[in-house]
Amino acid sequence: MTKTSEILASLAATIESRKGGDPETSYVAKLFDRGPDYIARKLGEEAVETVVAALAGSDEELVGEAADVIFHLCVLLSARDLTIADALNELARREGMSGIEEKLSREPK
Amino acid sequence: MTKTSEILASLAATIESRKGGDPETSYVAKLFDRGPDYIARKLGEEAVETVVAALAGSDEELVGEAADVIFHLCVLLSARDLTIADALNELARREGMSGIEEKLSREPK
Amino acid sequence: MTKTSEILASLAATIESRKGGDPETSYVAKLFDRGPDYIARKLGEEAVETVVAALAGSDEELVGEAADVIFHLCVLLSARDLTIADALNELARREGMSGIEEKLSREPK
Amino acid sequence: MTKTSEILASLAATIESRKGGDPETSYVAKLFDRGPDYIARKLGEEAVETVVAALAGSDEELVGEAADVIFHLCVLLSARDLTIADALNELARREGMSGIEEKLSREPK
Repeated sequence: MTKTSEILASLAATIESRKGGDPETSYVAKLFDRGPDYIARKLGEEAVETVVAALAGSDEELVGEAADVIFHLCVLLSARDLTIADALNELARREGMSGIEEKLSREPK
Repeated sequence: MTKTSEILASLAATIESRKGGDPETSYVAKLFDRGPDYIARKLGEEAVETVVAALAGSDEELVGEAADVIFHLCVLLSARDLTIADALNELARREGMSGIEEKLSREPK
Repeated sequence: MTKTSEILASLAATIESRKGGDPETSYVAKLFDRGPDYIARKLGEEAVETVVAALAGSDEELVGEAADVIFHLCVLLSARDLTIADALNELARREGMSGIEEKLSREPK
Repeated sequence: MTKTSEILASLAATIESRKGGDPETSYVAKLFDRGPDYIARKLGEEAVETVVAALAGSDEELVGEAADVIFHLCVLLSARDLTIADALNELARREGMSGIEEKLSREPK
């Protein structure tokens, strides 16, 4: 039960520790160095790769692309001093308020 | 520390419970009913909205879009009988193997 | 030979004529009313749908999504007082300069 | 008036001529060699870059990314033995049938 929390906490700590690091030796530092626009672009690209993997890839490929999406999402949030926990709390808030189905009431948008 | 795990576990349980549900009353059931191609498309669209929020939106908007990305990613993985934990384990495996910087060695692709 | 030019010119003229139009009755006017961020988001979403159609759709679906991409690209360019002709001239410039293969030399990025 | 048609025809001819070419020396041949999934992925990535350029880039950058989108769209269509003219004819058909505003009647989807 704590496993995923530990991974997310470790990931957040690693990302945070790379802020201001050397873009030449750290991919995360390179992302921060390039800035939010670049990180957002990479997130979008990983999402496209996830779509392709979902339609035409193996389970391994899909899991790998999903990992890339989560990773870049964490970096993007960190660049705005936000965390994946903020997004998960938002999901919990929605579920608490009106159930995970809240989104239904917002559709069609 | 367990908070994010609990949210992810609750989210996974909710999603699982909607499989075969009524697409008229449950958004998750509607996603499963439409199939993986449709879920992947929605994930891609939420990612685009996250990119836009990252460049031009408030923190609240970015967190909300990030939540939508995670949510649809969980549903997409579930449609293939995979979970977000699989993706997080993949991230942990990469960090364990060669550090979160492994991706650096894969770049440029 | 002039057919595609005429379609593009007609499309550009229609789009231009909708600027400042009623968002309630014209989809193009609605796009301009919502602004470049919204138009860009719609373009991104249509591109995702094109990816899905390319992997899992019929020829008719792919052509339809490709049409949506071109349409929203024209509106997006128009919102910046640019045209699809500018983008085509850029393609011609690249081909003239160093061949359509110029991009190869820019890869991997 | 014929300018854009000529560019599109030249682009289509160039793309067609690269089918079966050497992936080592031609970017288009490389795209065909990798197949439709890869081409679709590249299209999606260029669309994401266009979204970023629309929100945070110069006119030159937006035109450049739009050119990349059109280019990869042409290659993707060609991989299915379709052309950009097919997509433009679809746009003309929509305009002829019910005006460029047809899409309005399809919204919200």
